[in-house]
Amino acid sequence: MRLRKSLAVLVATLATTLAVAQCEDEYEDPPVNWGVLLFPTFEALDVFGPLEALNLLSLTVPLNLSLISRTLDPVSTKPRAMTTPSNFSESIIPTHTFANPPVDLEVLLVPGGLGTRAPDLQAEVGFIRDTYPQLKYLITVCTGAWLAANAGVLDGRNATTNKKAWAGRPVNNTVNWITHARWVVDDNIWTSSGISAGIDATLAFVEEIYGEELATDVANSMEYERHTNATWDPFAELYGLA
Amino acid sequence: MRLRKSLAVLVATLATTLAVAQCEDEYEDPPVNWGVLLFPTFEALDVFGPLEALNLLSLTVPLNLSLISRTLDPVSTKPRAMTTPSNFSESIIPTHTFANPPVDLEVLLVPGGLGTRAPDLQAEVGFIRDTYPQLKYLITVCTGAWLAANAGVLDGRNATTNKKAWAGRPVNNTVNWITHARWVVDDNIWTSSGISAGIDATLAFVEEIYGEELATDVANSMEYERHTNATWDPFAELYGLA
Repeated sequence: MRLRKSLAVLVATLATTLAVAQCEDEYEDPPVNWGVLLFPTFEALDVFGPLEALNLLSLTVPLNLSLISRTLDPVSTKPRAMTTPSNFSESIIPTHTFANPPVDLEVLLVPGGLGTRAPDLQAEVGFIRDTYPQLKYLITVCTGAWLAANAGVLDGRNATTNKKAWAGRPVNNTVNWITHARWVVDDNIWTSSGISAGIDATLAFVEEIYGEELATDVANSMEYERHTNATWDPFAELYGLA
Repeated sequence: MRLRKSLAVLVATLATTLAVAQCEDEYEDPPVNWGVLLFPTFEALDVFGPLEALNLLSLTVPLNLSLISRTLDPVSTKPRAMTTPSNFSESIIPTHTFANPPVDLEVLLVPGGLGTRAPDLQAEVGFIRDTYPQLKYLITVCTGAWLAANAGVLDGRNATTNKKAWAGRPVNNTVNWITHARWVVDDNIWTSSGISAGIDATLAFVEEIYGEELATDVANSMEYERHTNATWDPFAELYGLA
């Protein structure tokens, strides 16, 4: 009787150990250290859509965030190149500079926005180029993919970008731009379509890396009906892409 | 011949005048001066979902933005009351204080977030109470409605709020809380459900006030499939609300 009990306990323990090992293998060593690249006239939701999801995730999962820019001065969404009838913008505060970036960065998120059209983004593009080899993952939102393309890290890869701004994407490279995609995954680079697509890409990333349950919990907490199909893209047709 | 030409010009001018008058009547005197209330541990997307839509609108429609807080110090999303395993937050910079608010504020947007549970929000609640009488519109997102309720401005009104946090909403008042609603409009107060619902409420507000074409343009630019039905709310059921 004691032997049967002991055997039962042994089997149960083994089963648990195997299940845990399998689970740990599935989400082995999930990234902790996230960074977001900031530049003048970044798109607000490109940054704060993904960060909303990650802010919620960080309540229970260990995550660190660095906001990385040219200097530690506040970075504004204010249009620089175009004249508007408004005075309407927000400024957020970086935590690190390109010269003194965080150590052990594992995921870098690159937003888009009107600022990606600026002619003076050598420092931003250079930071992506120099940092990519150490990253576990690179995520771009919207025209953030243009910066990644200019950094050369999308060469030979599938990627997508903002559909309204499609015509302006970099052509002097070998990126295989995908027209119809909410987001595209190629190896360790995730590129999303325009603005709000960054939320869906981030939730898909959370599902892939941290698990489906957490992704669903976060989306539900956001009261967000997410798109889970990476090929859902009515905006490609809306903006006349073949 | 000259008379017929003169008459034709007169008729055309009258028609144009009438059309312009009708158009101006439809969106008479749309608000220009927007403010967003900021407090520690505000919810990022409660602020930046609506502001993304308004940032885009402001490229063509005259809009001014003030970010109003207790002091001019940066305001962070960092949890104050709960312990997390993370170091993950963002800080944004106010432009005005409660003591020196913008003049001619027309629309005040009040976000929610874990910070609305803080016991020290007398200044924020007082600012809503004191400012509401001068506003054209008050918009709350998520648990921002709790602050508006505590300010007394929702007394006798229909309103909604975050569905997951529903149980914590203020009860010592006469608000008619609506369980199943993406957003609720009562006179000049718009209250939205949790977090991402603020985007749909803001786009509905833009449609109502600035016109359907602009609202559609903005949503499409965001590549956002918006909910246009104010009673769409799967999250009420998900969180067990009758």
